Amino acid sequence: MLPYEKYPSQILQDAVEAISSLPGVGSRSALRLALHLLRQPSENIHHFASAIDRLADDVRYCRTCRMIADTEECAICADTSRDHSTICVVESVRDVMSIEATGQYRGVYHVLGGIISPISGVGPSDLSIKELVERVRGLAGSGEVILALSGDVEGETTSFYIYRQIEGLGVKVSTLARGLGFGDDLEYADSLTLGRSIIGRQPFKM
Amino acid sequence: MLPYEKYPSQILQDAVEAISSLPGVGSRSALRLALHLLRQPSENIHHFASAIDRLADDVRYCRTCRMIADTEECAICADTSRDHSTICVVESVRDVMSIEATGQYRGVYHVLGGIISPISGVGPSDLSIKELVERVRGLAGSGEVILALSGDVEGETTSFYIYRQIEGLGVKVSTLARGLGFGDDLEYADSLTLGRSIIGRQPFKM
Repeated sequence: MLPYEKYPSQILQDAVEAISSLPGVGSRSALRLALHLLRQPSENIHHFASAIDRLADDVRYCRTCRMIADTEECAICADTSRDHSTICVVESVRDVMSIEATGQYRGVYHVLGGIISPISGVGPSDLSIKELVERVRGLAGSGEVILALSGDVEGETTSFYIYRQIEGLGVKVSTLARGLGFGDDLEYADSLTLGRSIIGRQPFKM
Repeated sequence: MLPYEKYPSQILQDAVEAISSLPGVGSRSALRLALHLLRQPSENIHHFASAIDRLADDVRYCRTCRMIADTEECAICADTSRDHSTICVVESVRDVMSIEATGQYRGVYHVLGGIISPISGVGPSDLSIKELVERVRGLAGSGEVILALSGDVEGETTSFYIYRQIEGLGVKVSTLARGLGFGDDLEYADSLTLGRSIIGRQPFKM
């Protein structure tokens, strides 16, 4: 009989189990990472652990747009040079980062914190939709709401739900352009995307 | 200008940087993992961080074989039913776990904590070779030392160095069998391995 089931140390085992709870990290990778950490100087390990630990209580969410922030108001909402009458509605923090990375957007955001999904038990009241409607009401009939949600059924459902909530408030409501990706080959495009590209064709510009 | 270089929160950035310091984890994966953690309940994050933190100071190494342990003596060295006159010399903790997983070995181990590598600046004095020689001396001329190091130049160098240190002490010194892997196809074997398989051929058994 082996002297231990799997790990020679309970502490190592706890660390491996914690690491392998992360999505996409199996127990072999987790062991490799735990043993890597174990080889680091003590202060590096403490530093690593405390960087993670602070995620638990110290991260705040912007009171206006629900974006991650270190302060009460995120850097985007605090930026007076941005267009505060254009609100881009996204599912998550990551989407804000992706759109910011394009450098093409000068408005502000609203992070829903999820998407309406009856299967996962997420309803409209679990998302920051009420807060969004309040913000849109605050625009007093001018401005624009961009529904930048994913193109799947849940994304479309959420977009539709939000549209219904704000359609009477006088703001322009738009959605992201769908079509072939930049540099995409017609031959390999799926027919749904290609179809949308044809329907949404644009005037040719040189 | 973007309101933030890359991350909307310093705390998030610190966590992403810590996670991406792990081998094989890029900054995109690190962000994904950090955002995953952020979505967990506070107590889960604390639990995760503390499991890592305890790697820094609480893990101990067996006073005899240098294996990871929670106590002064590891479970293998403490097991009186094992053969303490057969010492398997390995590079790392992970090698012990690999050999234990085979269920084929009933002796004890000696973890060197590395391998002699002039390029990486690791010399014999950085490894637990002196302790090994003491242990072998303690066997008083009976028993066996198995040099279970990797088959590359550094492994061979280390094996040779250890052999030189213990050859006069009367114990049998062996090394792992090298040859084709179980189920390997001759056609795809490298010639070095195939050559060793021929030289080290075994009597045929039915």
